[in-house]
Amino acid sequence: MAQSTFFRLSATDGAARCGELTTPHGIVRTPAFMPVGTQATVKGMRPEEVRACGTDIVLANTYHLMLRPGAERIAALGGLHRFMNWPYPILTDSGGFQVMSLAQLRKVAPAGVTFRSHLDGSLVELTPERAVEIQALLGADIAMQLDECTKLPAAHADLERAMRLSLAWAERSKRAFVGAKDGRALFGIVQGGDDAGLRRESARALVDLAFDGYAIGGLAVGEPQEVMLRLVEETTALLPAGKPRYLMGVGTPEDILAAVARDMFDCVMPTRNGRHGVAFTRYGRINLKNARHVDDPRPLDPDAANGAYSRAYLHHLVKANEMLGAILLSQANICYYQALMQGIRAAIAAGEFEDFRRGTLAEWERGDIAPMSAEGRAGAQGAAP
Amino acid sequence: MAQSTFFRLSATDGAARCGELTTPHGIVRTPAFMPVGTQATVKGMRPEEVRACGTDIVLANTYHLMLRPGAERIAALGGLHRFMNWPYPILTDSGGFQVMSLAQLRKVAPAGVTFRSHLDGSLVELTPERAVEIQALLGADIAMQLDECTKLPAAHADLERAMRLSLAWAERSKRAFVGAKDGRALFGIVQGGDDAGLRRESARALVDLAFDGYAIGGLAVGEPQEVMLRLVEETTALLPAGKPRYLMGVGTPEDILAAVARDMFDCVMPTRNGRHGVAFTRYGRINLKNARHVDDPRPLDPDAANGAYSRAYLHHLVKANEMLGAILLSQANICYYQALMQGIRAAIAAGEFEDFRRGTLAEWERGDIAPMSAEGRAGAQGAAP
Repeated sequence: MAQSTFFRLSATDGAARCGELTTPHGIVRTPAFMPVGTQATVKGMRPEEVRACGTDIVLANTYHLMLRPGAERIAALGGLHRFMNWPYPILTDSGGFQVMSLAQLRKVAPAGVTFRSHLDGSLVELTPERAVEIQALLGADIAMQLDECTKLPAAHADLERAMRLSLAWAERSKRAFVGAKDGRALFGIVQGGDDAGLRRESARALVDLAFDGYAIGGLAVGEPQEVMLRLVEETTALLPAGKPRYLMGVGTPEDILAAVARDMFDCVMPTRNGRHGVAFTRYGRINLKNARHVDDPRPLDPDAANGAYSRAYLHHLVKANEMLGAILLSQANICYYQALMQGIRAAIAAGEFEDFRRGTLAEWERGDIAPMSAEGRAGAQGAAP
Repeated sequence: MAQSTFFRLSATDGAARCGELTTPHGIVRTPAFMPVGTQATVKGMRPEEVRACGTDIVLANTYHLMLRPGAERIAALGGLHRFMNWPYPILTDSGGFQVMSLAQLRKVAPAGVTFRSHLDGSLVELTPERAVEIQALLGADIAMQLDECTKLPAAHADLERAMRLSLAWAERSKRAFVGAKDGRALFGIVQGGDDAGLRRESARALVDLAFDGYAIGGLAVGEPQEVMLRLVEETTALLPAGKPRYLMGVGTPEDILAAVARDMFDCVMPTRNGRHGVAFTRYGRINLKNARHVDDPRPLDPDAANGAYSRAYLHHLVKANEMLGAILLSQANICYYQALMQGIRAAIAAGEFEDFRRGTLAEWERGDIAPMSAEGRAGAQGAAP
């Protein structure tokens, strides 16, 4: 695949940049946030709702889909886009991260990883070549190499072994991907844990292999934000400017804003928090379980798409454990994330990203403000609920 | 309220009839099916989806809403229509049925019923007057009298006592309702269990009280369909033709079709079954959990609104316990019920109800047909899955 037709930068503003990816299923505006559709559905949302929030691309999980319903089955049904009724771009991960976090009795060997399915205990082998094959069967617009993601903290020797194994798998993935359907992209994944030297070595070697894009894996797993950002900066400096950079599993709105010199992000946070009664808004997080919302007639945000519903009603739905609470808050959160990304892109294009960043931080800092009650009780400054 | 402006019959066909109810929040075409929004939400559905299926009116539960979030609170927030973002007609039950089935330590006395909340154990009193007041606070277009619903089987003496108590409560409800906001309606409820004599007495006495409509309560609680239909017929014969008749808690598509000489029905079945992976279709019930759907590329029904989703995908969602499975099947089921009601209304208007009934039964009887597999395996006649 010609590199120039996949990623086009349209503006830069300091380290931040905006542009677009061209995939077989359409354009992805960057910086992009990818909602996570683990089991071929963004939890609690219809695909048309995901799209209407301003989503260009979703992520789906190879590990889950290879086990159920199976990659060959999805291919026979016309591919993942048709299966999940999402005719727009899809990125699939390689399965490596979930093998490490969900599977039982996994055994990592140079050939690949064998593990027992968390669903039925059956023995499964995942090799770099099979991961590429599965992602081709699914029909992913962007595929990821198989990697070994090490939990932190870890000994240097373990980090080094996993990084080198991931590099060897990167090369095999690249080879297996040759001849893939025109227009599909394959990304390499930088590993190395929290060791900057290992990360630099990983990045350099991957760049030599000439992937269509580069992901930074194994971060946002609990380390402090400044540690994550330092490692991301170290790595990014070595990656070619003309290729997209994907910071995997990131993250909170705060992390995305801080790390926005990268082009792609994904996280389960907006939908998971939505299912647990927490809304992201431009004035920070709002926990709808909190009793202070019980009589509040205001919507989450007067400008929000779900202005038809009061906080009192959302509180009621969350307390009553009604599906509609999870549905409405998942949508509100995905919409908030995508509005944030749109704000970021517009600010970069206008050369005003630093103003945007400060303004956004100031709104988060201000926090949510409690309403005046009917009795005229003074509106108290609301801390994080 | 003038009776003639509330209910207008437009056609009859044998015992079946169609018409419309005029309420403060709009028209209800009859025979009508009312989806159940127990806790101010039809489970798993957005109100605009409920409406788009062809729903004119929903039912909400006084018992649940009085306990959480509270009737006074909903009134202060602008009423139930605004609270749940459903600006169309709402019928509320009186709370009697749930007090009997959900509350703990209930004590029935002539004055009313006292019980402990199933949520927090608090002691609550519900009288006929309070039930009318709560329904006014909610803003129900159609309110129901408080009644005592007896579980079957029951001794004659118990049925008689409960029926007479319900009658006394009917009279007090009627008195409490005087002066209600113009255009709202109050229904009496025929009780008497499975004793035809008691039911006749109940019906005659309620008619003397001149309610806006009459409900038949305490049926569809497990008795055979022919027993239910016989008691419904006995009762209906005594009710004035110019008032709407509401068969509470009914039911399956089969029950509705058999009992269609009544004008109003409600049931949790379409949404509850949807959450459990069962779809109602014109070829009968389809259990999406069944493995025979795993490779089936067909939609539930080629004419259905959710034709974008294959049975294979619905099967996957149900097996993976994904919310979208419950969302899509709840919608498919409400849409099926409302399409059935629309078919019934059109057939009555055209004087062809008997043909419609036979045709519908024949389609249910035919059942779902398994697809031809890719390997050319002959499509087998599908029994109920």
